[in-house]
Amino acid sequence: MEDVRVNFLREEDIDAPILIEGLPGIGHVGKLVADHMISELAAEKIAEIYSIYFPPQVIVDGHGVTHLVNNEIYRCEKDGKAALFLVGDFQSNSAEGHYILTEHYLDIAESLGVRRIYTLGGYGVGHLVEHPRVLCSVNMEHLRPEVEAAGGSFENAEGGGMIMGASGLLLGLGKMRGIEGICLMGETSGYIVDPRSADSLLAVLSRLIGIDVDPTSLQQRAEAMEQIIAKIQETEEARGREELSYIG
Amino acid sequence: MEDVRVNFLREEDIDAPILIEGLPGIGHVGKLVADHMISELAAEKIAEIYSIYFPPQVIVDGHGVTHLVNNEIYRCEKDGKAALFLVGDFQSNSAEGHYILTEHYLDIAESLGVRRIYTLGGYGVGHLVEHPRVLCSVNMEHLRPEVEAAGGSFENAEGGGMIMGASGLLLGLGKMRGIEGICLMGETSGYIVDPRSADSLLAVLSRLIGIDVDPTSLQQRAEAMEQIIAKIQETEEARGREELSYIG
Amino acid sequence: MEDVRVNFLREEDIDAPILIEGLPGIGHVGKLVADHMISELAAEKIAEIYSIYFPPQVIVDGHGVTHLVNNEIYRCEKDGKAALFLVGDFQSNSAEGHYILTEHYLDIAESLGVRRIYTLGGYGVGHLVEHPRVLCSVNMEHLRPEVEAAGGSFENAEGGGMIMGASGLLLGLGKMRGIEGICLMGETSGYIVDPRSADSLLAVLSRLIGIDVDPTSLQQRAEAMEQIIAKIQETEEARGREELSYIG
Amino acid sequence: MEDVRVNFLREEDIDAPILIEGLPGIGHVGKLVADHMISELAAEKIAEIYSIYFPPQVIVDGHGVTHLVNNEIYRCEKDGKAALFLVGDFQSNSAEGHYILTEHYLDIAESLGVRRIYTLGGYGVGHLVEHPRVLCSVNMEHLRPEVEAAGGSFENAEGGGMIMGASGLLLGLGKMRGIEGICLMGETSGYIVDPRSADSLLAVLSRLIGIDVDPTSLQQRAEAMEQIIAKIQETEEARGREELSYIG
Repeated sequence: MEDVRVNFLREEDIDAPILIEGLPGIGHVGKLVADHMISELAAEKIAEIYSIYFPPQVIVDGHGVTHLVNNEIYRCEKDGKAALFLVGDFQSNSAEGHYILTEHYLDIAESLGVRRIYTLGGYGVGHLVEHPRVLCSVNMEHLRPEVEAAGGSFENAEGGGMIMGASGLLLGLGKMRGIEGICLMGETSGYIVDPRSADSLLAVLSRLIGIDVDPTSLQQRAEAMEQIIAKIQETEEARGREELSYIG
Repeated sequence: MEDVRVNFLREEDIDAPILIEGLPGIGHVGKLVADHMISELAAEKIAEIYSIYFPPQVIVDGHGVTHLVNNEIYRCEKDGKAALFLVGDFQSNSAEGHYILTEHYLDIAESLGVRRIYTLGGYGVGHLVEHPRVLCSVNMEHLRPEVEAAGGSFENAEGGGMIMGASGLLLGLGKMRGIEGICLMGETSGYIVDPRSADSLLAVLSRLIGIDVDPTSLQQRAEAMEQIIAKIQETEEARGREELSYIG
Repeated sequence: MEDVRVNFLREEDIDAPILIEGLPGIGHVGKLVADHMISELAAEKIAEIYSIYFPPQVIVDGHGVTHLVNNEIYRCEKDGKAALFLVGDFQSNSAEGHYILTEHYLDIAESLGVRRIYTLGGYGVGHLVEHPRVLCSVNMEHLRPEVEAAGGSFENAEGGGMIMGASGLLLGLGKMRGIEGICLMGETSGYIVDPRSADSLLAVLSRLIGIDVDPTSLQQRAEAMEQIIAKIQETEEARGREELSYIG
Repeated sequence: MEDVRVNFLREEDIDAPILIEGLPGIGHVGKLVADHMISELAAEKIAEIYSIYFPPQVIVDGHGVTHLVNNEIYRCEKDGKAALFLVGDFQSNSAEGHYILTEHYLDIAESLGVRRIYTLGGYGVGHLVEHPRVLCSVNMEHLRPEVEAAGGSFENAEGGGMIMGASGLLLGLGKMRGIEGICLMGETSGYIVDPRSADSLLAVLSRLIGIDVDPTSLQQRAEAMEQIIAKIQETEEARGREELSYIG
């Protein structure tokens, strides 16, 4: 195997002007959004990416069948608008691997005519957030007004900050190739998988790409999650009262 | 030295349709089974594999003679059935090394006509198991009925899961070459070297490959181990009672 | 991307006989000095260095725009004297990367006619220092008198010691190319960003290179920092007294 | 720089039939012996080895002059017998680097006619040892009687064991080239630099190579060290008595 191997499942009619990256990260926000969109838009898998820079393991599915760790490219088309998705269960295992894999992602993007990349992630704030903002960064300043018009916030910019892994490098290395890059990060506690944050992010992203995506199932997951959290908080408060009465 | 060097000790009549991997892992279950089979079936060493991806050290044997860390290929033939074994004291030192070594194992397997690989390991459950199941994964779904008929269980599949290192990659990378792969994992606590789990695994594997292997010495090791554990438990209980009486 | 990529922003009139390295390190002393000089001398950025050996991330600036982690070369000219600066927010991610990046820095230095390199850093002593010395090392013994005449001290030499990362390797690998190397280290606690230590270092460096640099803004930062520390110490003492009275 | 660079300081009359490795390790026993022999036999430095696999740093000497981390080859000749020494302050930074560097050491050894390698080290036992044995391993079994005749012990062989780093790999990889290898390990606590253990090792090694080496300065270091240890033990006992009387 080469260090990175890309297997295309289809060779024709796979161009698209945009690529949306939703690899695992804080609160799995980006992955939740991308996986939801792939499912709602019935996107089709067009490529698989294998690499020695991924963890050396296989994933076992519900049928007991193993699958080598990989990243995948999906493609959807709706109302004459096409989009690519970069998803998977893992990012690179090593720092150098992040760079090398990202260059391969960009090779694919360029070869398929991508002119803009959206990278999705979570923005960890350390506490539960009821109305999560969508905090943003861009790799070219002229992109900012468009993002703000769609409901993205740049309030995080004042504090500087870093964007790690594929979400960051796709913007940084993409700029060198003249590809526009927008990173959308849903505010999230960082402690839980966060479909509420994903729902906020989806709304901004839908406006930016001009493709409607039904958010219902994501919102249902968010409500279910919130009920679980409420229950945990109740239990903890009850236990707190009990302990207090015991101590008292 | 190249990054991976394979030394064949014999060049002729070394083909076999199956390869059995028993490198070190959880509870040393896979290693116990493979080493037992090599000894019972009087398998012959046919190749040594050296690599910069193994730990940089030598092993000292009982005569004070050093041996560079390596993996080895053995071959046995019984009742007209041939099998290869991949064994050793170490796996790769690094994530990339796991991939690179596995590709070399598969090169050897392909060149010797291997059409199916069995990878052996332990499945850690965190507590002692009296009647260990043999939990399984396959790299092609059509292999499942055959494994179940031989006594292998797929009850673990529901929870998903991962298979790390050579046991996983041989299935994942092997599939890309069209080689069938079956991973057998003996249920084990994960705290001890577990010949009881190995004995269960051996029974299932023997049925699958159609080669009888006398399990007696493995079972004797299991009984010896169980007596040691019983003794430790007794001592601990006695100590527990003593402490209680002291406190009381 | 190659493993290391150097982008020149200007190709002509960029020679200089000296290079000053101020990458991040203990107390950020070297970085403070180099950044201060770049600003005071209105140095111009002439090259950007990108590498897979840097951390895989982008930095977000105050406008929400991302910048791929890099190192940069600046150049200034004053009173007919030219100097280059090597600065950035990160050093290499890995041991091998340090060597590989330093060889590229030296390639640039050689191609621009550099005959001497100053590397700047902090010398951590574990306690606050009121009058920080500038402790020095050289890569050729004949450089020592000149450094001492400029106020640099070699009192640290008795204890031996190590210089890690770019500051060390530029001297070690530079010597192999016949490039003179002088490392200046401002004494510092190692616990805080230390503009006072940077101010001491700047004075010695100015004398060595024969370029005057107004230290006012660095001294103002030092005073501000010292007021903050004094306040913290006061608060801690107050808290100490309170706790004592509480215990008493 | 290539990944490993070897600079010869002299090209002629540098052959020798044996190489003695004394790189840093447990109790610095091997390094003490090799450095002592180089000094007593007035060995001459004939080569320097630099590599990106060494730690990325320079060492500052007593004059404030920096030296890039390296390994060095010395050569001595006494009574018509020549020997090479491999010494330095560091071993490789990475597992792969150990293999790559050792192959370069062996290339040098082969090119200089070396037919036997002695690797020196400490054998940590976790407690102070008054009369340290010299425990041994060989890479070819026929070497054992000779080593035993010289006072080396193989009592450690029963427990198996590992030899890490250059001391191990020179034997393991050397054997592949037909070079005899003998590892001598002075018994040592593992907590201190141990000249007493080094003195025992030197005696065995001198007999093996047939070169007399005056052990006086090593024995003086050992006595000085033992006086320091005795003093520490006295102080600790005194403190122990004090504490007891305090408690009592």
